[in-house]
Amino acid sequence: MTNVKLAVVFYSMGGTNYQLAKWAEEGAKETGAEVKILKVQELAPQSVIEGNEVWKATVDATKDVPVVTSDDIEWADAIIFSVPTRFGNMPSQMKQFLDTQGGLWASGKTVNKVVSAMTSAQNPHGGQEATLLSLYTSMMHWGAIIATPGYTDPVIFGAGGNPYGTSVTVDQDGKMIEDVQAAVKHQAKRTVQVAEWVKKGNQ
Amino acid sequence: MTNVKLAVVFYSMGGTNYQLAKWAEEGAKETGAEVKILKVQELAPQSVIEGNEVWKATVDATKDVPVVTSDDIEWADAIIFSVPTRFGNMPSQMKQFLDTQGGLWASGKTVNKVVSAMTSAQNPHGGQEATLLSLYTSMMHWGAIIATPGYTDPVIFGAGGNPYGTSVTVDQDGKMIEDVQAAVKHQAKRTVQVAEWVKKGNQ
Amino acid sequence: MTNVKLAVVFYSMGGTNYQLAKWAEEGAKETGAEVKILKVQELAPQSVIEGNEVWKATVDATKDVPVVTSDDIEWADAIIFSVPTRFGNMPSQMKQFLDTQGGLWASGKTVNKVVSAMTSAQNPHGGQEATLLSLYTSMMHWGAIIATPGYTDPVIFGAGGNPYGTSVTVDQDGKMIEDVQAAVKHQAKRTVQVAEWVKKGNQ
Amino acid sequence: MTNVKLAVVFYSMGGTNYQLAKWAEEGAKETGAEVKILKVQELAPQSVIEGNEVWKATVDATKDVPVVTSDDIEWADAIIFSVPTRFGNMPSQMKQFLDTQGGLWASGKTVNKVVSAMTSAQNPHGGQEATLLSLYTSMMHWGAIIATPGYTDPVIFGAGGNPYGTSVTVDQDGKMIEDVQAAVKHQAKRTVQVAEWVKKGNQ
Repeated sequence: MTNVKLAVVFYSMGGTNYQLAKWAEEGAKETGAEVKILKVQELAPQSVIEGNEVWKATVDATKDVPVVTSDDIEWADAIIFSVPTRFGNMPSQMKQFLDTQGGLWASGKTVNKVVSAMTSAQNPHGGQEATLLSLYTSMMHWGAIIATPGYTDPVIFGAGGNPYGTSVTVDQDGKMIEDVQAAVKHQAKRTVQVAEWVKKGNQ
Repeated sequence: MTNVKLAVVFYSMGGTNYQLAKWAEEGAKETGAEVKILKVQELAPQSVIEGNEVWKATVDATKDVPVVTSDDIEWADAIIFSVPTRFGNMPSQMKQFLDTQGGLWASGKTVNKVVSAMTSAQNPHGGQEATLLSLYTSMMHWGAIIATPGYTDPVIFGAGGNPYGTSVTVDQDGKMIEDVQAAVKHQAKRTVQVAEWVKKGNQ
Repeated sequence: MTNVKLAVVFYSMGGTNYQLAKWAEEGAKETGAEVKILKVQELAPQSVIEGNEVWKATVDATKDVPVVTSDDIEWADAIIFSVPTRFGNMPSQMKQFLDTQGGLWASGKTVNKVVSAMTSAQNPHGGQEATLLSLYTSMMHWGAIIATPGYTDPVIFGAGGNPYGTSVTVDQDGKMIEDVQAAVKHQAKRTVQVAEWVKKGNQ
Repeated sequence: MTNVKLAVVFYSMGGTNYQLAKWAEEGAKETGAEVKILKVQELAPQSVIEGNEVWKATVDATKDVPVVTSDDIEWADAIIFSVPTRFGNMPSQMKQFLDTQGGLWASGKTVNKVVSAMTSAQNPHGGQEATLLSLYTSMMHWGAIIATPGYTDPVIFGAGGNPYGTSVTVDQDGKMIEDVQAAVKHQAKRTVQVAEWVKKGNQ
């Protein structure tokens, strides 16, 4: 059993990425990893959220999920990010979290974190690749080690074959179209496994 | 009717991108554009091609299609590229063509070409976004003007909603899974339209 | 003289991108364009800004600059973005502005805007290319027309030869290392010129 | 001392990337790694090379360097790529090598290779970031583990601060402008170190 510490950091407006995060937690726990599910700070005003039933429901459903801090990133051996795509890039809420980690970055404490990422979009090709790649570009600045799924397991093909990370299409009613649960779990296990190698080697 | 000159430059191993190119030609001709369909030079040895039935059939089917030259790029007001994805990037055959346009580039003759691109892959998220973006990065070096479909027509949503260019998933038997014909035609018309604006303005 | 309307939309913490924006304005005005310089909404709390002398000075210097709205984007024929790089991507402040333009996007009013972008970083290769490319990816979702400088003028080589847009390195004291003023002005003129062609053609 | 096997795979026309490869070899050997320096197959016809003195000299200087094969990639625990930028992307010669590794990829033998990359360009911002990122996108398809330098050592700042990999600007006479030797060695050591962790853990 591993002793890897995994932070699953998500932003979710409609619930999809919270669900992906929970599946990642399940997969990681099967390997024995210690897992924290963490949300990033919302930037939208409460009044806007109140006017959107689905959004409000997600905020309610995640109200007990802690907001991620620099301490969580420092704590983690591995990080899995999960965000919806916004115009082919991560949402501002996640970017704001990354941008405010300058102090942690400058102290060298982001180095050698093992990372991967997940995403969702309303269109099959509406940024599901580009958004993941945008996260990895930032992670290279952090000195992180990037371990994407590639095609390391047959479940990836069934989930749309995204080598950069699990991604899912969400229909107008907020339902996921592809069944990506197994792919998410595989990704979580792979991320933890690589993190375990790094952690052991780096001791 | 437009007097735009459009070069549709493709690489095709299994026939998909040749078909996309022909649909683009059809769409563009409906606007009155003058269209050349052009293939890039194959790099694989003949013996390898002979050993692959589908590949051989495509080479046969395209044997009368001219190989694109610098003169064709100079001639064109607009260019639509169509290539399969190879590990999230354009195939070497197309890259080789771009790389050998250094002379044309240095003379300034690539500037203000209006461009867009199309692609295909075996997996829905197997590089269908990343490959198109790789082409546009190179086109920025050329001083080209990039006019992707975005979400400028409802047919784009039906074709998978790729704002970077039409893309299609091809199954094991080489059949296209989504019906992208209308999206390709729309893309061709949009590329020609923007090229017409640029051409008129630039005279 | 052109009748193009140009919005120069920037985020600036240390003053560099505000200066780039003003040079872009100067260049654009020489062509007769109508120009609005606009800042994006700050996300940092006032207390944090107060604790940073340079940041506070920039906030003071830009206090009369209007905050950009959807109406400004609708108004504009052309947009030039100017942002510092944050981990190889645009800052959250700019991303937040883009993300909140969903209504404008859904109404089709972002289509055919002619765009280019500028950036700054503390390291020569600290995201000066990646940040510009991240903005263009989002602009493809908007259906914008991307007209980067490429190598359309010799001044670009003198400014570091960034074909994706003017970029500048800023030292520890906040001073720009390369002289990019001429490159910025050229970029602004080029963006306006392409926008003029599109505007005339599109009428 | 490590027992990591490192393949340094380069393409070089003017000698720069061959030099970078040799510095990487030096750095890696200091850690005890077993290193192979390997070139990719040239695509240009001999007659073109003969007409270019510098190119011819590089071909002569590297005539005893073996051409990389699938067996070399299978052999390697770690890979460092070194290529000049060609329009913001790797050269066709390197892409051709990657494209022809489909068999190795399909057999799963590209998985968990630890990779990083280096590049050169004539302009400081002429693709030095974009080219490295294009290589990493392909490596994610391979299931490789990406370990870029980030800002893991002060020598990186002195070499231009490229977190994606060491990059260097080459002047008209083919001379490197920045002194990147220490950064290359650091990158090589870091790539080997991460590969060692992965290799030990994966046994």
